[in-house]
Amino acid sequence: MNQNRPVQMGVDYYPEHWDPHLWEQDAKLMADSGVRIVRVGEFAWSRMEPADGQFEWSWLDQALDTLHRNGLQVVIGTPTMTPPRWLIDKCPDILPVLPSGQLYHEGVRGHRCYNSPNMRTYSARIVQKLSERYVGHPAVIGWQTDNEFSFTDCQCTACSEAFREWVRTRYNTLEQLNQAWGTVVWSGEYSDWEQVTPPYGGSPFQNPSFLLDYSRFQSDSIVAFQTMQIEIIRHNCPDHFVTHNFHSYPQKADQYKIGQDLDFASFDYYPNPSPNKTDTAPYSGALSLDLTRGIKRRNFWIMEQLSGPPGCWFPMWRTPQPGFLRAYSWQSIARGADAVVHFRWRSATIGAEQFWHGLIDHSNVPGRRFKEFQQLCTEVNSLGERLQGSTLQNEVAILHSHDQLNALRIQPQAEGLEYYENIKVWHRALTKWGISTDVIHSSEALDGYKIIIAPHLYLLDENTAERLQAFAADGGILVLTHRTGVKNDNNLCVMASLPGMLSACSGVRVTEYDPVGGDQIQIRDEKGNTYTASQWADVLELDTAQAIAVYADQFYAESAAVTQNNWGKGAVYYVATQPDEAYLSQLLRTIAEQCGLSEIHSLPDGVQVTTRSGPNGTFRFILNLSPQSVSIPLQASYTSALDGTIKGTRLELGPYGIEILEIQ
Amino acid sequence: MNQNRPVQMGVDYYPEHWDPHLWEQDAKLMADSGVRIVRVGEFAWSRMEPADGQFEWSWLDQALDTLHRNGLQVVIGTPTMTPPRWLIDKCPDILPVLPSGQLYHEGVRGHRCYNSPNMRTYSARIVQKLSERYVGHPAVIGWQTDNEFSFTDCQCTACSEAFREWVRTRYNTLEQLNQAWGTVVWSGEYSDWEQVTPPYGGSPFQNPSFLLDYSRFQSDSIVAFQTMQIEIIRHNCPDHFVTHNFHSYPQKADQYKIGQDLDFASFDYYPNPSPNKTDTAPYSGALSLDLTRGIKRRNFWIMEQLSGPPGCWFPMWRTPQPGFLRAYSWQSIARGADAVVHFRWRSATIGAEQFWHGLIDHSNVPGRRFKEFQQLCTEVNSLGERLQGSTLQNEVAILHSHDQLNALRIQPQAEGLEYYENIKVWHRALTKWGISTDVIHSSEALDGYKIIIAPHLYLLDENTAERLQAFAADGGILVLTHRTGVKNDNNLCVMASLPGMLSACSGVRVTEYDPVGGDQIQIRDEKGNTYTASQWADVLELDTAQAIAVYADQFYAESAAVTQNNWGKGAVYYVATQPDEAYLSQLLRTIAEQCGLSEIHSLPDGVQVTTRSGPNGTFRFILNLSPQSVSIPLQASYTSALDGTIKGTRLELGPYGIEILEIQ
Amino acid sequence: MNQNRPVQMGVDYYPEHWDPHLWEQDAKLMADSGVRIVRVGEFAWSRMEPADGQFEWSWLDQALDTLHRNGLQVVIGTPTMTPPRWLIDKCPDILPVLPSGQLYHEGVRGHRCYNSPNMRTYSARIVQKLSERYVGHPAVIGWQTDNEFSFTDCQCTACSEAFREWVRTRYNTLEQLNQAWGTVVWSGEYSDWEQVTPPYGGSPFQNPSFLLDYSRFQSDSIVAFQTMQIEIIRHNCPDHFVTHNFHSYPQKADQYKIGQDLDFASFDYYPNPSPNKTDTAPYSGALSLDLTRGIKRRNFWIMEQLSGPPGCWFPMWRTPQPGFLRAYSWQSIARGADAVVHFRWRSATIGAEQFWHGLIDHSNVPGRRFKEFQQLCTEVNSLGERLQGSTLQNEVAILHSHDQLNALRIQPQAEGLEYYENIKVWHRALTKWGISTDVIHSSEALDGYKIIIAPHLYLLDENTAERLQAFAADGGILVLTHRTGVKNDNNLCVMASLPGMLSACSGVRVTEYDPVGGDQIQIRDEKGNTYTASQWADVLELDTAQAIAVYADQFYAESAAVTQNNWGKGAVYYVATQPDEAYLSQLLRTIAEQCGLSEIHSLPDGVQVTTRSGPNGTFRFILNLSPQSVSIPLQASYTSALDGTIKGTRLELGPYGIEILEIQ
Repeated sequence: MNQNRPVQMGVDYYPEHWDPHLWEQDAKLMADSGVRIVRVGEFAWSRMEPADGQFEWSWLDQALDTLHRNGLQVVIGTPTMTPPRWLIDKCPDILPVLPSGQLYHEGVRGHRCYNSPNMRTYSARIVQKLSERYVGHPAVIGWQTDNEFSFTDCQCTACSEAFREWVRTRYNTLEQLNQAWGTVVWSGEYSDWEQVTPPYGGSPFQNPSFLLDYSRFQSDSIVAFQTMQIEIIRHNCPDHFVTHNFHSYPQKADQYKIGQDLDFASFDYYPNPSPNKTDTAPYSGALSLDLTRGIKRRNFWIMEQLSGPPGCWFPMWRTPQPGFLRAYSWQSIARGADAVVHFRWRSATIGAEQFWHGLIDHSNVPGRRFKEFQQLCTEVNSLGERLQGSTLQNEVAILHSHDQLNALRIQPQAEGLEYYENIKVWHRALTKWGISTDVIHSSEALDGYKIIIAPHLYLLDENTAERLQAFAADGGILVLTHRTGVKNDNNLCVMASLPGMLSACSGVRVTEYDPVGGDQIQIRDEKGNTYTASQWADVLELDTAQAIAVYADQFYAESAAVTQNNWGKGAVYYVATQPDEAYLSQLLRTIAEQCGLSEIHSLPDGVQVTTRSGPNGTFRFILNLSPQSVSIPLQASYTSALDGTIKGTRLELGPYGIEILEIQ
Repeated sequence: MNQNRPVQMGVDYYPEHWDPHLWEQDAKLMADSGVRIVRVGEFAWSRMEPADGQFEWSWLDQALDTLHRNGLQVVIGTPTMTPPRWLIDKCPDILPVLPSGQLYHEGVRGHRCYNSPNMRTYSARIVQKLSERYVGHPAVIGWQTDNEFSFTDCQCTACSEAFREWVRTRYNTLEQLNQAWGTVVWSGEYSDWEQVTPPYGGSPFQNPSFLLDYSRFQSDSIVAFQTMQIEIIRHNCPDHFVTHNFHSYPQKADQYKIGQDLDFASFDYYPNPSPNKTDTAPYSGALSLDLTRGIKRRNFWIMEQLSGPPGCWFPMWRTPQPGFLRAYSWQSIARGADAVVHFRWRSATIGAEQFWHGLIDHSNVPGRRFKEFQQLCTEVNSLGERLQGSTLQNEVAILHSHDQLNALRIQPQAEGLEYYENIKVWHRALTKWGISTDVIHSSEALDGYKIIIAPHLYLLDENTAERLQAFAADGGILVLTHRTGVKNDNNLCVMASLPGMLSACSGVRVTEYDPVGGDQIQIRDEKGNTYTASQWADVLELDTAQAIAVYADQFYAESAAVTQNNWGKGAVYYVATQPDEAYLSQLLRTIAEQCGLSEIHSLPDGVQVTTRSGPNGTFRFILNLSPQSVSIPLQASYTSALDGTIKGTRLELGPYGIEILEIQ
Repeated sequence: MNQNRPVQMGVDYYPEHWDPHLWEQDAKLMADSGVRIVRVGEFAWSRMEPADGQFEWSWLDQALDTLHRNGLQVVIGTPTMTPPRWLIDKCPDILPVLPSGQLYHEGVRGHRCYNSPNMRTYSARIVQKLSERYVGHPAVIGWQTDNEFSFTDCQCTACSEAFREWVRTRYNTLEQLNQAWGTVVWSGEYSDWEQVTPPYGGSPFQNPSFLLDYSRFQSDSIVAFQTMQIEIIRHNCPDHFVTHNFHSYPQKADQYKIGQDLDFASFDYYPNPSPNKTDTAPYSGALSLDLTRGIKRRNFWIMEQLSGPPGCWFPMWRTPQPGFLRAYSWQSIARGADAVVHFRWRSATIGAEQFWHGLIDHSNVPGRRFKEFQQLCTEVNSLGERLQGSTLQNEVAILHSHDQLNALRIQPQAEGLEYYENIKVWHRALTKWGISTDVIHSSEALDGYKIIIAPHLYLLDENTAERLQAFAADGGILVLTHRTGVKNDNNLCVMASLPGMLSACSGVRVTEYDPVGGDQIQIRDEKGNTYTASQWADVLELDTAQAIAVYADQFYAESAAVTQNNWGKGAVYYVATQPDEAYLSQLLRTIAEQCGLSEIHSLPDGVQVTTRSGPNGTFRFILNLSPQSVSIPLQASYTSALDGTIKGTRLELGPYGIEILEIQ
């Protein structure tokens, strides 16, 4: 697999949607505009195989030839998200069975059970044929598996059998299963393996240990479905890369498991252009990008980037303002994207996605957005080779895990306490200080970080507890929060004072808690400043820790709300409630200064700073992802990598303005 | 069919709900009160045919005889909305199958698939027997088909087969079908006719071309079901009229198609008496009446008029205030009703509609509302013959179509952009200027109009485009809006600058658009006044048009928001956004004045003015549909048709007061 | 059955959830803390009978022996709410069929149809075996049937057949059935008994007479299922009591019918500890307790009392503040509880109820709440024998009935008009005056009361009308409200002026009404004070009654809104609208003073006063169920039953402070 490419721009293109007479002019305009990569093929099963075993490649041959003739590289998506109608006719068991017992009918997409043996067989064949056909095509450089994997929540017979097997492999005996899931409650004990089924009826009241394992099984089903495809592709196309396009977080499906077999991760990035979202969109987008980079702990691709107002089965969003498309594409690159493929070349005139707008409108008259895209392509192409091989080097990481997400979804703790939303607040506070942050799975190695933020380690296993303690003992700063150590890996509550296995290193014990939910309570820091908090309040007994903030009201007023505990060469913070962002921001600044983080800046709203370093230099991206003009102080004079000008003590950026500075 | 009748009053009466000893006294009170028409029979299938093929007419004979003896005329409703239990037992395939796959069970009403062969057979028989029986009854003057047709959303086997046939007839080959619907998207191509089915699962994400055609098929299914009945009735009762009672707009079912075979349309009119609805109820009611008149472009009946608080499976509404019933009945007549039948004589003491109140309460003690009804009957009877044959002659029409409604429902364009709601705003603004307006199908001839308002011609065919261009070229004023010309008749986007085929006559091209949704933007007219707008903003390039309002903010500020373009002897306006009612009101006044419309008045809130002219004179209805007293200037002295008094320079109307003036 | 016990404290304990090595230490800590009663066993079917016909008692023997060894008494719950998986495998017809046609799957609890013959057979056997086994165990004192009976809304074949039989028994012939339900409406007439089924599809539009009877049948199904169990228990264990734990009101299931066979009722009491609920929780709790006392018109048990934050399938509630648990347990006793069993001893570490917190947290480290519980146990034990045999003697009763609740749910009258919510307002207004109130079924004898409040006697039978008239004629004060006498027992509207059979005694006739709903109208009392009202407004004609308040706006302004009518030695009030609580409070004070009620006090918010009298004295409970400190004037000096101190002219109570005074 060859990944030695400059940073490049691309587009998603569906030749089968357009009259072939348009292909040549489209390809030429792409090439002329600076596009280097085109993704094709996913969803086109009915054209590739219009009838069982009858494969039609001529149209795709012609399309790829046309693209190649214009110097474009191609990524092919496997079309397994859209089994054609003849296949459903032949194998109706491919359709997922919803928790209600109703079928997930064909007619849209995603109408396939990952565990259906027929779906596996026919998917393997189309992937086999497709990869055989195009391994040698000079345009093709890599593959995308399927499209935006997510849970179908299928409960068909095949799923039931596969789940039973999964459970049996994990627990061996019914005794161990009943023990592991605590099924004695409500007489739920299994007395026969046949009783192990998906959660029929979809009740949210079912056994939480069972439900968490079922979500793990669902992720594993996707992994198995994908692995089958990847093995075929790798066998046939050893020189091509394989990726998958993840989308809109948080996802219940475990992206780390799905990512394991990929060469790199991809992301479909649709930042919301609404003027009402300017406070949040830049930050939730930044988190999405950092999380995507963390899936494989390496640079990634954007496989679909916003090109115009999305819409279709929901009312359309606002159109992106001038500069928005360019700025958010640079944000992708600034956070580790090595390619930015825009969705889509031209808005569809047919089918369900007509109003998910492309770069060019239905009229085929290139407009404002397309001209902005052309400028962007020119910029990226001028810098692409210098950026090749460059990466972000961060000193802070946030830990993340789908098991935590799913467990907290299965048993909501308090109104407003949402795992991913709370991660967003930590990440946003860091981003606003200009502190570039990794987001990694909690099982990852922690070497090289100065600070680890670990929100809600609700499920806690011994290995994680030990690694975190070791991290702090070795001089790291570990930040823990309420709802840590509550459960073991089977989603059973532990019979221990919280935070359980992390009680010693944090120096605190939770003696009781108040699920504050949407109510607001007060906390007070050491300087006497008060802040609001919500969601949760642990009442602590301090063993070795020091309080650095206390509750300012409630019956536990004056008791510790945030603590610090020295541990080995490092320290452990315990944040016992959910303070507002203002407090978290101050706390993070204090911690960052103590650690001597290299860069801490108070950035204007919407401004983001990250740095990519590589063999061809170090580049600092300063992006104004807001519709306001901003002025940013610079500590020295720098050369603009965009236009070579020297930037002095202040950098002025207009709405959605960006700058890239060369750093010594 | 004999329609030569004075304007008359009626009531809906269910003899089968009451002890027969009440019939005589009820009929006598009706007659004494001035009632002339009684509708009976719909829903009474189980009494007409208590067992398969066993018909029982004696009760209905006796009821009709009683009514006739008291001088009352009768309209019979066919009972096909309520197939009896024995029929469902015998033919369970009559029950509709919902998109979820569940049955629409008996126990309420409407539990019948329009395409069920058994339903057709048994419906034909009961209509045959009923019309045979009563063709000769001296009381009977006409027929109502079924009751309030609407989509059942049935997806049973019969519907599936009928739809397949419908599609096959329309598209001939699978190739043409796949082309027409653009099924290649998401591999939705049909490879076998058997794959053509209703939208199982009811997903809103399905192919929009398919969904629009499915809604057309659903309307056609109703038409076929009704035509079967009408043919029987016309054959048996050539001297009787046939109508159908439409209800609560907007309806997905195509009223123009359903109306085609009728002698005239009827409407079930339930204006909301809530004091919170006084700003909107008079105007949405006026639109409903104008739309009903437009179904056949002739006068209509009210088959059910509000008589008291509705309620039943929802909490009851407020009771109508004194004068409300009278004023709204006159509103019906003022807008073209030739009969106003009140629902219902007396509130039911049994069954599901107990709290859908009639004129007389459960107690059978006539109260305030009944006395008001008696006064109304007296008034109508005194004027009925003079109004006979009179009609409204309007100079303005709004174009309307269920295809537009359904297409915009299938693919919502922007938050708040609702087809019928936007029509309401145009109609209300006209009504407030006293400009009486027709609402007609967009395929109707446009002769005689000075102004055509054509909101959202989203689907645009060549014929309509040509007729509209010709209308303007011939001197008419055509008002177009955003979302015009977007699609062809198959609900595919056109590859052309919008408004597509109407671009030339409007003199504008849409270069991009902003789906503004619920956000508010600003526009500014030529006088410098600013107004708000929302939903949508087309950004225009003006070819030959002049801007008469511009955007006052957003990145397209100062570009045209509303334009005027001379076209032949007339002109075309293009309204590129959805301005607030204040702007539309000013715009309409300007246009109306330019056209020299005969009457433009600034009417107080809730006051409506329309004119009926006929062989016996011209009558101007001035209705105060508000709970406030109003004073209205008159341009001359007029004689009151109600009481013969002379009305001078000002007309004073109390709450819900009305006046009818004789015009020279 | 021996009920001669002091007032005692208990806990709910699930030995099967815990390692047996914990049992002894748990039992010892219970006993040491003052616990006297332990409930066990409900939900443990899969442990009692792990396979068909294979019974395992050793674990329960050992658990009961352990409890007995520590001096604890035991109540056993029958485990029939949780049929084990092997039983569902064997008899899948046990699973309820929901109105949608989908199964109510196993995996949670309550997955059993009350009418399933298999469910009856297997339930009878487990209850038979369980009661045989433990009749002689020295710890066992009584039984709880099942758990928190409520409608499953099952529509399975067995339910359908049972319902058909129930209807047939009640109505004998189809003619009488069709008459009684008024099925002629919408051709709903039954022509064959087989057509009588549950309301498939669950439509809210179905015939209201049918739906009301179906709800009666559903209650009777529960009764039959429970009677089967009670007969077995009484036969096997003649010296044990039998109770059932009702929960969260209002319930659709008829608690009076279910209570009929019980020795006493029990209630599961979970007052909401949220600081946002301090205005309502004490009062809705008081109503729940009074209602529970009224089920059998005798003292009751609390079988589950709040011990910590509930949560699980919903976000957790706030934790109870210091004093809350104690104060609300005393509230239970103050209103007639003879035992307060706390749910649960320790929070579960397994299963779906992990976050329905017990007295001791998951950590098994007793904390603040447990210490408060220990104090409470000490207090209750010190007073328990003195309170033995004491009861409340009230002069006021509110009438209540599930038929009214269900009928008004089936046909909602007006927005906001909710039967139980309106009862709450009457009860709260009385409670705030310190007027202790019974809540009894409307068919109960009324002897001994001075005032009867009868909200919404919507369904009215002759017997009730006569008893109420007699009550007033004998000197009682009867308070009637709007929506009285509307319907007969078959849920048909009566053809009479309202309030129908109570028109004479109230001296008023309703001539029309206005379903005001959520709108606000004004009323004015005799002093000229105005108040708001909503929901409904009857317009009255006064025959013999006097207006004591009139409407102050609307078209019926100045007509009577509240009336008083002398009737025999008493009087009847008719409240024609739903006045705000301020007005009801003034009205009740006036009425109470006229009746010479023994105690009327204006109590601070959250403070409640009740009195228990018995062979060992009279005890007045003064409870501050609020987080604010309060000061309450005393009319004399009293001895505290808690600590023997003398309380002078003022009683000072801190947040959630309580006092119990000995009255001469």
